[in-house]
Amino acid sequence: MAKPKKQPRPKAQTPKGFRDYFGAEVTQRAEMLQEIAGVYHRYGFDALESSAVETVEALGKFLPDVDRPNEGVFGWQEEEGDWLALRYDLTAPLARVFAQHRNDLPTPYRRYAMGPVWRNEKPGPGRYRQFYQCDADTVGSASMAADAEICAMLSDTLEAVGIARGDYQIRVNNRKVLNGVLEAMGLADDSQRDAVLRTIDKFDKVGEAGVRELLGKGRLDASGAYIDGVGLSEAQADPVVAFLTSGGESAAATLDNLRAAVSGSAVGGAGIDELEQIADLLAAQGYGPDRIALDPSVVRGLGYYTGPVYEAELTFDILDEKGRKRQFGSVAGGGRYDDLIKRFTGQEVPATGVSIGVDRLLAALREKGRIEAVDRGPVVVTVMDRDRMADYQAMVAELRNAGIRAEVYLGNPKNFGNQLKYADRRNSPVAVIEGGEEKDAGIVQIKDLILGAKIAENATLEEWKERPSQFEVARGDLVARVREILDGQG
Amino acid sequence: MAKPKKQPRPKAQTPKGFRDYFGAEVTQRAEMLQEIAGVYHRYGFDALESSAVETVEALGKFLPDVDRPNEGVFGWQEEEGDWLALRYDLTAPLARVFAQHRNDLPTPYRRYAMGPVWRNEKPGPGRYRQFYQCDADTVGSASMAADAEICAMLSDTLEAVGIARGDYQIRVNNRKVLNGVLEAMGLADDSQRDAVLRTIDKFDKVGEAGVRELLGKGRLDASGAYIDGVGLSEAQADPVVAFLTSGGESAAATLDNLRAAVSGSAVGGAGIDELEQIADLLAAQGYGPDRIALDPSVVRGLGYYTGPVYEAELTFDILDEKGRKRQFGSVAGGGRYDDLIKRFTGQEVPATGVSIGVDRLLAALREKGRIEAVDRGPVVVTVMDRDRMADYQAMVAELRNAGIRAEVYLGNPKNFGNQLKYADRRNSPVAVIEGGEEKDAGIVQIKDLILGAKIAENATLEEWKERPSQFEVARGDLVARVREILDGQG
Repeated sequence: MAKPKKQPRPKAQTPKGFRDYFGAEVTQRAEMLQEIAGVYHRYGFDALESSAVETVEALGKFLPDVDRPNEGVFGWQEEEGDWLALRYDLTAPLARVFAQHRNDLPTPYRRYAMGPVWRNEKPGPGRYRQFYQCDADTVGSASMAADAEICAMLSDTLEAVGIARGDYQIRVNNRKVLNGVLEAMGLADDSQRDAVLRTIDKFDKVGEAGVRELLGKGRLDASGAYIDGVGLSEAQADPVVAFLTSGGESAAATLDNLRAAVSGSAVGGAGIDELEQIADLLAAQGYGPDRIALDPSVVRGLGYYTGPVYEAELTFDILDEKGRKRQFGSVAGGGRYDDLIKRFTGQEVPATGVSIGVDRLLAALREKGRIEAVDRGPVVVTVMDRDRMADYQAMVAELRNAGIRAEVYLGNPKNFGNQLKYADRRNSPVAVIEGGEEKDAGIVQIKDLILGAKIAENATLEEWKERPSQFEVARGDLVARVREILDGQG
Repeated sequence: MAKPKKQPRPKAQTPKGFRDYFGAEVTQRAEMLQEIAGVYHRYGFDALESSAVETVEALGKFLPDVDRPNEGVFGWQEEEGDWLALRYDLTAPLARVFAQHRNDLPTPYRRYAMGPVWRNEKPGPGRYRQFYQCDADTVGSASMAADAEICAMLSDTLEAVGIARGDYQIRVNNRKVLNGVLEAMGLADDSQRDAVLRTIDKFDKVGEAGVRELLGKGRLDASGAYIDGVGLSEAQADPVVAFLTSGGESAAATLDNLRAAVSGSAVGGAGIDELEQIADLLAAQGYGPDRIALDPSVVRGLGYYTGPVYEAELTFDILDEKGRKRQFGSVAGGGRYDDLIKRFTGQEVPATGVSIGVDRLLAALREKGRIEAVDRGPVVVTVMDRDRMADYQAMVAELRNAGIRAEVYLGNPKNFGNQLKYADRRNSPVAVIEGGEEKDAGIVQIKDLILGAKIAENATLEEWKERPSQFEVARGDLVARVREILDGQG
């Protein structure tokens, strides 16, 4: 056997599009998810953690005429066996789980799931190939009460994690209404239909007149470019415009406008009836349009929705990277997908559910100051005398037993400055110092690092000068005095 | 283009060796991990969630002369790019993270991590290819205080989650001592060394005499099979036997016995000094041998350990699948690995840490009755009149607002028996019934399902007959009376 070549050192790097999460990033997400799980649980939803790996067959991404599963998932082939892949969302696995375990699961099956999903996409700034989702779905209920419940629960959830009423709105629409509009238009083919859907998505940007132009001959863009139109007649465009502008003062008014827009389409009428049921149920439970409103402009990209669709928008302004004001935007969305489970079972199983964008919601909470950007570090007990490690360990044990986060400095204690630099890097609120002299005198030195930093910043201010940031306390008072300082730091 | 063939229905099945976790399985694990995170945090450890996907290069599993990464990991190749793989533990990613971010991280870096890991191994009964680990490590400290701290923290952690003192023991050894023993034996080659290590692992089963036979000429197994010996002389076997039987009344006695066993080996002496430091630090903090003890028989399989190794055993008996008593066994283990990060940086970075077997610890808590096997389901409000869904929703809203888990039945309400079967499958404690007559009379029916089940089981008992399991209450008393029943059910 040839002697193996010496390999170069491996690169210490996350794969492209992946990242690591540190400290508060992890614990704040965990706390938010726990809060959300509490609401879901109270609503009767059960936890589910499905395997992160699925067969490509179950995910429904396999094309039989290519060597590898198609774009979008991370997949690999078992030795002489199935193609497997990482889940790309939590809905496809739910469909598989329900089909697999349906004889043991209650029906309706309310479940929530939280965890990472993976997308084999080109990464970009702020776009990662692994991220968290947090879903709640009701499988096996065709009742609009299931959709209304999810909307109500989403509203309760946003308030529970710290989004104030008035800072969000949940908007509800129905795919059948949209289908009714398309039916009422009498479109020639699918490509026209797709063009109309794309135009509807632009309503927010171009307004009613713009939509009319885009549906007709075309439109001169703000940039000066000419966008070709769909080539429809005015009469054909009318239902779309009526649909997009159907939002009224009340749910009843909106529903009336929608009925006019779908003018006799059976599927459109069914969709409006469903919207009405949802609106009535929510009104009876006191969820007014300040929290949940009908909104015909909600489309939701995913093709698998078959009825109600809903979306939670945060309505407060933030500054974008160029310093311009804009609405925070969507943090959750979902809808009814009655056909996903049928793929496995051949029988229709109605289902509806919502997915929360965990990272976006966390970002919103940081934006609103609901969670702090940094974690407070531990109290650091410094090491003045390396032979008395046991003494220092005893101090941290006392502090920890009192519920205070604390640790002994475990690096090389030779350079005391390094110990304080370490405490600084840890965001430590307090350092404790006990040299030989202090030991003999039965005291310890306590250094208030937050106050110390303030004094360093504002060295000229008289008020700081009078407050020492370091002082002696009796060894027996260590825990009580540290707690006082921590409480004072707020 | 040829018309695509109609594909057969996909199988609804987890890939081989993977499984799903439902309800209490998920929430109980989450609660245990949260409890553990609380202890780790109090000890000054910071959370880290590294990406689930690593480059195979960083994981260190890549063989350049094969097409695919070798056994053990789930790997795939990026389009014209790196081989990626799912992490197989949390230690290799920590080494990568520390090497990558070392300029921004505090040193020493104390971190904890919790999450799934994946092994591409042949699945077996109870052996899955995805499972949870929960690790705590200190990187950048060569001090034995770091190892002692991890052992103390492990002890605190086990007690915090519900393992009583006396039901566990943490056992500490040192690889250098073992190396010293092997040095003192003057072994001819590596294969003899490996044979000796395998024999040491059998000490628990075959005892001192058995080990002597196995190190010498060989041994007749209990099954009648003859096991070939290593072929060592009595004198060569002496250090191994002295080492294995060195456990004394006190740590000091054990250390004395070990010193004799390594008789002058420098590396052995260094290992014993390290053990002594750990023992002294733990004794000073009051962790006696009932919690943490020196134990020369602890070996730990992983090749990367370079100094102290430790293991937590649960010492209570359980019945195995054949009804025989046996000790529960190991739930956590770890040690010092000073060379793992050097792979990336070229510089030695000392590190030590522990990994808890999450599923085994959960199983132990269930075994000890610390956590209940099943989750209590929600209160189910039944649907007697489908036009009054809003009334039923109002009831569950009241119950939820009082912190009571509750839901409306969302299946087809036609068959009332199905609604009660559903409540049964959900482990619901209470069902609420309000038909038209009740509505008119301002009352609701409450059904105590737990009591009802007891009555059904013991229908002849007089005491049950006198207690009705279903009764009327005023609509306004719904929440109060449901709470009374839940409290009574305990």
